[in-house]
Amino acid sequence: MDRIVDLIRSKRRGSELSLADFERLINGYTLNDIADAQMGALLMAGVCIGFSDPESVALTTAMLRCGERLDLSEIDRVAVDCCSTGGVGDKVPLIAAPIAAAAGVAVPMIVEPSADHVIGTLEKLRSIPGFRTDLNVPEFSEVVSRHGLAFAGQSNALAPAEKKLYELRDETATVDSLPLIAASAMSKKLAEDLKGLVVDVKISKGSQLSTRTDARRLAQLMIAIGRRLGVKVQALLTDLEQPLGFTVGKALEIMEVAQTLQGQGPQDLAGLSVEIAARMIYLADPTISIEDARERATAVVEDGTALQTLANVIGAQGGNPEVLQDFSQLPNPAGAVPVMSPREGFVSRISAEDIGRAAVILGTGEDDADGEIDPAVGVVLETKVGQQVFNGTRLCALYYNDDSRLEEAQELVEDAFRISSRQPQPRELVLDLIQG
Amino acid sequence: MDRIVDLIRSKRRGSELSLADFERLINGYTLNDIADAQMGALLMAGVCIGFSDPESVALTTAMLRCGERLDLSEIDRVAVDCCSTGGVGDKVPLIAAPIAAAAGVAVPMIVEPSADHVIGTLEKLRSIPGFRTDLNVPEFSEVVSRHGLAFAGQSNALAPAEKKLYELRDETATVDSLPLIAASAMSKKLAEDLKGLVVDVKISKGSQLSTRTDARRLAQLMIAIGRRLGVKVQALLTDLEQPLGFTVGKALEIMEVAQTLQGQGPQDLAGLSVEIAARMIYLADPTISIEDARERATAVVEDGTALQTLANVIGAQGGNPEVLQDFSQLPNPAGAVPVMSPREGFVSRISAEDIGRAAVILGTGEDDADGEIDPAVGVVLETKVGQQVFNGTRLCALYYNDDSRLEEAQELVEDAFRISSRQPQPRELVLDLIQG
Repeated sequence: MDRIVDLIRSKRRGSELSLADFERLINGYTLNDIADAQMGALLMAGVCIGFSDPESVALTTAMLRCGERLDLSEIDRVAVDCCSTGGVGDKVPLIAAPIAAAAGVAVPMIVEPSADHVIGTLEKLRSIPGFRTDLNVPEFSEVVSRHGLAFAGQSNALAPAEKKLYELRDETATVDSLPLIAASAMSKKLAEDLKGLVVDVKISKGSQLSTRTDARRLAQLMIAIGRRLGVKVQALLTDLEQPLGFTVGKALEIMEVAQTLQGQGPQDLAGLSVEIAARMIYLADPTISIEDARERATAVVEDGTALQTLANVIGAQGGNPEVLQDFSQLPNPAGAVPVMSPREGFVSRISAEDIGRAAVILGTGEDDADGEIDPAVGVVLETKVGQQVFNGTRLCALYYNDDSRLEEAQELVEDAFRISSRQPQPRELVLDLIQG
Repeated sequence: MDRIVDLIRSKRRGSELSLADFERLINGYTLNDIADAQMGALLMAGVCIGFSDPESVALTTAMLRCGERLDLSEIDRVAVDCCSTGGVGDKVPLIAAPIAAAAGVAVPMIVEPSADHVIGTLEKLRSIPGFRTDLNVPEFSEVVSRHGLAFAGQSNALAPAEKKLYELRDETATVDSLPLIAASAMSKKLAEDLKGLVVDVKISKGSQLSTRTDARRLAQLMIAIGRRLGVKVQALLTDLEQPLGFTVGKALEIMEVAQTLQGQGPQDLAGLSVEIAARMIYLADPTISIEDARERATAVVEDGTALQTLANVIGAQGGNPEVLQDFSQLPNPAGAVPVMSPREGFVSRISAEDIGRAAVILGTGEDDADGEIDPAVGVVLETKVGQQVFNGTRLCALYYNDDSRLEEAQELVEDAFRISSRQPQPRELVLDLIQG
């Protein structure tokens, strides 16, 4: 049997690695039998030279086999999930999942932790007092079985390889590789024992997916991996020229999730959430049309069953479901400071990345300077792209507890807004649909 | 200041790293502030994407600055060294160095440890009873000052970065990169405070330098690095179609070194050693011609002063100098077994790699199976390429203490010899001379 260094050399020289090779690598790495240096070098060789589609499938399979897989065969619903490549203000999965569950889909959602300046669904849920994301596999299955939906973080049982590999990639500048992004996302989602998956691929300047070509390629790769592993995947390519919705923060985003499920959400967020939920419903039951699926999704928002589903799940996972009606029971910040428009004109861009970084500085995430994480703080937009503003119009507000880095956050937010003299052309939020 | 992960990303995307970047990387890595995974990924990115010549110079400089540098300014000789890219049976540095020293050159030689199936000069010297290679910097300078020559291994003071980086490269399949080979060799040699350096670039099938193009490129790179850092470099490209000389082993090679310095060495080894010593003498004193330098080199072998110089150095470094005259004072093996020619014909090739691997199996180095290192054992050729043999002619002998893997070594050695019906065309040992 080849030594690991021979596998690395062979990848470096352009050979294709087999499923057996990837299983040795992933199992060995997860068991700490393979050194970080070797795995870092192998990933970098793959990133520089490329991973073929069969290699992406093999890597996904190896990662999937390395952990436990849910068994939802006892549950009388079809399991379909959604995921997003991650965007500032993106709380769509927290809205689409209860909608789909209320419409009869099983949604066993393993949620993402925060990465860089994007707050993870995991951390948003943890801002709900009492909410547990560390369910074990039987507990998780039980909540899905009773309510059609449950949320759990990754663990040593569920997708252990992905967690360890992601940390390594983050350290070695190998995060933004399409095959690695696809394998990572798919191995995690396929551990959920799904029949279908709706992927929201976000395109944003300065992010790891900055062009439509890359986004389309990632979508196709995820569809190809899904096809080989028995999961039907549909992907929406969506524009992230500005944060989605109004709020960026942990508790702040939970509030907007509740408002949206009450039919009071911002148009972009509500529209995209219903569209993604509709596609989940459609993948679970392809005998209906996508139009019918959209109607069902809209209906369960209007009649309150989607909101009730989320409340039930929060309760079942130890959290206080009243937070969805009474925001004073969520962590609340001590102070707020508005940012005003410096002149008359039209909002033509709101840099999602700058807003995300400002939120991190206010305390939503760890950055280099200090490690205090604060679930209450964040940024709330009060205008969106296309809107007319005047000198002194409130553009957004910063919510904080600790004002030591407030000025830095303010400057970043001021730079995030571009005010132009001409009204920008309206842009479509959903740019494309890719399906297998 | 960029984070390390940003430097890795920037290298991966094709940017050129600066001297300041390499100094951060090398100093941080040597101090254990940078993780193996990050350095492994960075090297792999460089290997895949390429390091430019200025990057090779910058990397060498950073590695050089990271350790102590000898100061030979008190010594009234010009310092010139030689080095080899490494070949089975290559004991040239141990012969050329005392010749050059006897002719008036200062040779402060930091020697190589073993790598893969090639025995390092370090381990050969250690087979001499009492010989110390762990001299500190003042001891080392003192021996050079008194005898014109000293040998030391790398240490935490001398070339510390190179040692740590080599171990990482060995683990991550990034050894065979020309810029990394050049930077590694040059940083170690430049720490010796040299004026000149003669490099023997070995070309051998199946080794890291298998083509003349690669060998020439490496030579040019080392010359370019030397020029930027004030050291005149000359490189010989030499053919390694068979092991150099007759012996492959630790004590066995010391014996052949002694024989060659007594004027009794094999022609290929003696000729190349004198040529390299002559170029060292010439680089130390360019007012003489290369022909005069060759004459001086030959003279100090003939009059015994080169042998006496090596004996003095062995004595000064704690070893028993009598080993050069009385081989029974070196470690001697318990048994020997010959390998015979299976048919009549001409020896047309002796695979240096197979002979080297057989020696490792006999105990000259650690391999996977067991870790016992034996300075006495090895292989002694009794024929060389071009020689006529008959069925039953002795091709070589295997010297061993432990016969548990003798058969395996025998098979490897049998495969190493190719016996052809036609006499092969004689090949030149020295293929080319490259100078700046």
